[in-house]
Amino acid sequence: MSDLGLKSDRGLTVGVFDSGFGGLTVLRALMPLLAGARFIYLGDTARLPYGSKSQETISRYAVSSARFIEDLGADMLVVACNTATALALDDLKAELPMPVVGVIEPGAQAAASLKKDAHVLVLATSATVQAQAYTRALRGLGLGAHEMACPLLVPLVEEGWTDHAVTDEVLRIYLSQALEAAPATDTLLLGCTHYPLLEPAIRRVLEGLGHPLTIIDSARATAEATARVVAERFPALSGVGAEASFYATDSVEKFQRLGSVFLGQPVGSVGLIDLGG
Amino acid sequence: MSDLGLKSDRGLTVGVFDSGFGGLTVLRALMPLLAGARFIYLGDTARLPYGSKSQETISRYAVSSARFIEDLGADMLVVACNTATALALDDLKAELPMPVVGVIEPGAQAAASLKKDAHVLVLATSATVQAQAYTRALRGLGLGAHEMACPLLVPLVEEGWTDHAVTDEVLRIYLSQALEAAPATDTLLLGCTHYPLLEPAIRRVLEGLGHPLTIIDSARATAEATARVVAERFPALSGVGAEASFYATDSVEKFQRLGSVFLGQPVGSVGLIDLGG
Repeated sequence: MSDLGLKSDRGLTVGVFDSGFGGLTVLRALMPLLAGARFIYLGDTARLPYGSKSQETISRYAVSSARFIEDLGADMLVVACNTATALALDDLKAELPMPVVGVIEPGAQAAASLKKDAHVLVLATSATVQAQAYTRALRGLGLGAHEMACPLLVPLVEEGWTDHAVTDEVLRIYLSQALEAAPATDTLLLGCTHYPLLEPAIRRVLEGLGHPLTIIDSARATAEATARVVAERFPALSGVGAEASFYATDSVEKFQRLGSVFLGQPVGSVGLIDLGG
Repeated sequence: MSDLGLKSDRGLTVGVFDSGFGGLTVLRALMPLLAGARFIYLGDTARLPYGSKSQETISRYAVSSARFIEDLGADMLVVACNTATALALDDLKAELPMPVVGVIEPGAQAAASLKKDAHVLVLATSATVQAQAYTRALRGLGLGAHEMACPLLVPLVEEGWTDHAVTDEVLRIYLSQALEAAPATDTLLLGCTHYPLLEPAIRRVLEGLGHPLTIIDSARATAEATARVVAERFPALSGVGAEASFYATDSVEKFQRLGSVFLGQPVGSVGLIDLGG
């Protein structure tokens, strides 16, 4: 067992980080795959949203968040945030002495495994689209790629309008514009952890546009990639009972309320921390 | 002249602070009223939006932003942000050795001066509404008050959809709900510095609802209140030529691009600063 291997007295600890609540969809997919692990989830809610900010700021926020998780004893880190993955994954890998898994490469590989010459449309935040990380990952796998910034979707999800005529109309505008620019599209990759909550609305709108698409769930793809890293790097993991601790940099009450929607079960106690922002 | 008075060698310096660009509408109204002053504008763009965050976090962000402006030699501070005024004005007044003007009291007084028994509907962010500062200010002046949280309006303005069918529909939903809860409403107060850019859409939607309202421009009211404080506290102000310096905690390029829309003229060079977030 390497020095990065399992500390057998306490089992494996997996850190999961997002700017807010959306990354809980990754944790939700991960918990059944790693039933014996302990999880630390940090939502950097005081500084969200990352999606409209610059690369320098996002990298600084992501590294300070990851350091907090490292100090709590995590053995590996899952960056469950598309924007932080697109803009800070290299910095995180350079700064942290542990395996780091992002959401972009697993999502791209899931698209490739379904259809080896897929033409993929990626819906994401402005910062993610500007970084073009999905385009690089998809083209690196021989796939077609088109990215579309959808800045209104996160606010609509947070307003609770996941099943609402206004949201359908906003989706219709974004999707028709993207499909006009990339008419060969056959696969849709949801490049933001908020968007899975819009999947029924997206299916409905695509049907109305007469352009159905295969939809990739990158939360599940990321969870599976994480499980593969665990099997390879921490083979001695033994079950000690799943457990998750939650931390946020802003309102604990809001984290519990919104977070439970994304996690699919009640979020218990949440620790309020200050990262100096 | 008191020790808080004009330092005659350099003229008066007025600090203006907002979480982002919206406060530039206050600066825009202020510059013609104080033609001889120097202005320092800080947009805490790395940590925006304040509107969805907690009181503790907003107060911490506002005080650190104000300290930066104080260190640059400001003689007074205008809090050109409804959320920071609603949640941090008392902390700012306690922490800063200078006059501090917020946007809420001037807006409420402008409503009272137009109609002494007005029934005022306030549209604002979630955090501003939760603080109920407008309700206290309006009722303190003997006016009726109803506050409505409109979390989608800032993202719609930042998407550039100020003249768009989706925005009209969102406004129709928010306004009908508010007018159903407060049918006696005769005055509308725009409780967020982004909302003046939606004024034509708001007038159009109110006409469609058959419920026209007097709309209060709190940017202008705040500028006039600031000019009164200057006349009282810094009577020796002499013209040295208007000048404005701009600072932001995130992307200078985005500040220049979006900021010019709010300021109504090009924003020149912008200093990028780090407030430790």
